[in-house]
Amino acid sequence: MSEIERKFQPLFNPKSVAFIGASNNPRKWGFIVLANLINGGFKGPIYPINPREPEIQGLKAYASAADLPETPDLAVIVTPPLTVPQVIDQCVAKGVRAGLIITAGFAELGGDRERLQQKMVDRARKGKMVLVGPNCNGIMRPSSKLYSAMPPVFPPPGPIAVVAQSGNVATSIVLRAMKNGFGCSCFVSSGNEADLHCEDYFDYMAEDPQTKVILSYIEGFKDGRRFFQVAKRVTKKKPIVMLKAGGTTAGARAAMSHTASLAGTDLTFDGACKQAGVIRAKDMDELRNIGAGLIRQPLPRGRRVGIVTAGGGWGVLAADACVRVGLEVPTLPEETLAELDGFLPPWWTRTNPVDLVAGLREGALIRSLESLLRCPRLDGVILLGIMAALPVELLPRSASQDVIKRRTEAMLQMIIDVYDQFMGLADMYQKPVVVGTEFPFAIGDVENQMATMLGKKGYICYPRPDDAAVVMASLASYAEYLRSWA
Amino acid sequence: MSEIERKFQPLFNPKSVAFIGASNNPRKWGFIVLANLINGGFKGPIYPINPREPEIQGLKAYASAADLPETPDLAVIVTPPLTVPQVIDQCVAKGVRAGLIITAGFAELGGDRERLQQKMVDRARKGKMVLVGPNCNGIMRPSSKLYSAMPPVFPPPGPIAVVAQSGNVATSIVLRAMKNGFGCSCFVSSGNEADLHCEDYFDYMAEDPQTKVILSYIEGFKDGRRFFQVAKRVTKKKPIVMLKAGGTTAGARAAMSHTASLAGTDLTFDGACKQAGVIRAKDMDELRNIGAGLIRQPLPRGRRVGIVTAGGGWGVLAADACVRVGLEVPTLPEETLAELDGFLPPWWTRTNPVDLVAGLREGALIRSLESLLRCPRLDGVILLGIMAALPVELLPRSASQDVIKRRTEAMLQMIIDVYDQFMGLADMYQKPVVVGTEFPFAIGDVENQMATMLGKKGYICYPRPDDAAVVMASLASYAEYLRSWA
Repeated sequence: MSEIERKFQPLFNPKSVAFIGASNNPRKWGFIVLANLINGGFKGPIYPINPREPEIQGLKAYASAADLPETPDLAVIVTPPLTVPQVIDQCVAKGVRAGLIITAGFAELGGDRERLQQKMVDRARKGKMVLVGPNCNGIMRPSSKLYSAMPPVFPPPGPIAVVAQSGNVATSIVLRAMKNGFGCSCFVSSGNEADLHCEDYFDYMAEDPQTKVILSYIEGFKDGRRFFQVAKRVTKKKPIVMLKAGGTTAGARAAMSHTASLAGTDLTFDGACKQAGVIRAKDMDELRNIGAGLIRQPLPRGRRVGIVTAGGGWGVLAADACVRVGLEVPTLPEETLAELDGFLPPWWTRTNPVDLVAGLREGALIRSLESLLRCPRLDGVILLGIMAALPVELLPRSASQDVIKRRTEAMLQMIIDVYDQFMGLADMYQKPVVVGTEFPFAIGDVENQMATMLGKKGYICYPRPDDAAVVMASLASYAEYLRSWA
Repeated sequence: MSEIERKFQPLFNPKSVAFIGASNNPRKWGFIVLANLINGGFKGPIYPINPREPEIQGLKAYASAADLPETPDLAVIVTPPLTVPQVIDQCVAKGVRAGLIITAGFAELGGDRERLQQKMVDRARKGKMVLVGPNCNGIMRPSSKLYSAMPPVFPPPGPIAVVAQSGNVATSIVLRAMKNGFGCSCFVSSGNEADLHCEDYFDYMAEDPQTKVILSYIEGFKDGRRFFQVAKRVTKKKPIVMLKAGGTTAGARAAMSHTASLAGTDLTFDGACKQAGVIRAKDMDELRNIGAGLIRQPLPRGRRVGIVTAGGGWGVLAADACVRVGLEVPTLPEETLAELDGFLPPWWTRTNPVDLVAGLREGALIRSLESLLRCPRLDGVILLGIMAALPVELLPRSASQDVIKRRTEAMLQMIIDVYDQFMGLADMYQKPVVVGTEFPFAIGDVENQMATMLGKKGYICYPRPDDAAVVMASLASYAEYLRSWA
């Protein structure tokens, strides 16, 4: 076990957990977070601590850490702010190595509370105890069935790590990943970052074999210099995608009162990200989109994109979007046009985007994709509206539930099969294939099923042509960064 | 009936429909579009026309328009391009007043085909027959159960009209509306606009009592001057939200080969939109978002926004987003702060955004909203993360399906009730209340149910704080435009 793994083991893979401030009152966080921990199925012992109750949510309760039958690896702390330094003392005395402090009311309130936070950190550090928070939402480690957080959200294990200076934004990110079938390796709401800073989590996630990509929401830095030093090291191993808030005056004011963060200017941050290989996302959807795109795609060798579309309008939007994010949409060489002539209808428009012109011929989609992947003038391909190019049997609206169910299953299987083909070709030609917009046959629950099923294999269909362009551009930028260090 | 209603009646409320090029081959558009028309439940007679088949999809077929037992109001035409002028002649001879030409292969191919298109139009105009298309996806008028289009998508009747120079983009827009429970008044894929141009549909929709907002996707204009003259007239009655494609070189090239559109520069278009009161959207999601926001909100009297958030991070993102789209996020006057002090926890941050600081007290959300609506320094309110501020009972993960179902129903009811309160307050204070991000308890199908249920009442929860800001800014711009003409 490396030093960093040893440091984080009690946080992300604890053998037992003490819950200080456990409650039987369903309107208190001491109830809700504990309920999530229990409902999440944590395998080791959970020790609720509450001096006034013999039992909490069906578990035997203890008066204080001193009374516990063993030393828990992790202490979750939700007691009022003024009690926390003393709680830390008790944990240290018992030998607890990690604390998750959900309680708010520290540095974000300034003055006395800033000093209270410092006192707490000093005692923990002296006692060799690491701290998450305070003023945070919690942590999750799905592979350990550790769901120790405020929202009743239970992502499955998966490749995405989330570190956020807002627990709610962290939850928003994880929900977005889950909707697309992607699970989580770690979830950290880092709060005020009194002890552990986001860069510490990055360092751990870089080593963590479960993590394939790190998604992060940042309001400001305790130590910007170290942050970017760590990021620079980490991005050579794994991509970091970051959403930075507080770039405007009103946003900075809000960030200050939220997590006592000095947001800094957007421009400085942009420059530092570029130097450290950090990929910036503009919003929570982009964060998920870029993250999902980095999980199983080969990186492009350049910025030249071919577009195959089952609908002309989607192609126009994609071409615009590509140019706006700094990609090129070159015309195609004669040999590629000749290949496409071989199987597209005679009135196809012989340009890039390749518009399948409402053709209902089977095979044109995959063959067009392969022609573009083979084309030396292109570095990657965006596919749009693929469902419109697949043979889907029409059903009368009066079809029975049974018939609809069978049709849906066949359709889901067809989609998975065609994605397998896409990704097989992407791997073969070592060029990314980014799929967007849209599944008109898959409305409502079928759409969720499809998204989940795709995500389990690391696949995704982006809702807009614009998203596909942003993802392709991010892959290209990250590839350029890595090449600059090769 | 006004002149314009008379002109469009055979298109959007036909008593009977002839389908020329009807097919029994499921791989042909002549099958698929007819199947959609039948499955959509069109109430009047449908007359398939095919000289080689006695029966098509269970309906008696006719050899030509001349053989029909009555004059159909509308002819849907899917026969090959070279046959179309003659088909038009037959329709005119029979007295048909409207044609929907789905067939492609006209002006978008240039040369001879441009002349073919002109020939077809000349004959139709001479015969007083209006034409939609060619090279289009179809039209829908849900209130007439007229679903005469390529995608098997059946939006319910509702307030949103869609006019698009791409049938696939039109479908994408309608699917986005449907996911949020919003139905459609009209759906028009306008194609090459050989006869009817998008501005003609605008004129109709302005008069159409079903239509509350017009969403439009445009690649270029046949007659830009007339387009903006009509738009200027229409926007005084109803908002037009527009997504314009082809603004980049690659996009313009794609638009030219798609619908023979001259895209023009983005800057000229922007200026013309501002003068005509047309609201621009950047992508298909924004189009839906702004459209939905215009359906039942009072328009703001200025650009000053109050934000109430159940999570600090969402508030920071919203503040940034507001500033970036030209809204202001002012600090609050002392009297409003004092009001909020009355029911928020003592450690609340006394600023705008108003962060409910993970408070679990009931009522704080609605009371905060009302305080901000009452505040004379604010013109509208953005609410974020409202589910996190509502009392939702936690369930063990082992809860039975029955318990989960009852909890879900109660939760859905609670959400509708609280939205009713929001909108009641919005109406009372005549200031918009825009809700965003997010329903963490509502994953998968429950989220769809909730979105649908909200949409039926004209409500929506936007996925990102950024979306809420964009919608608020669009409401403000539209209000400013209308005031400039008052």
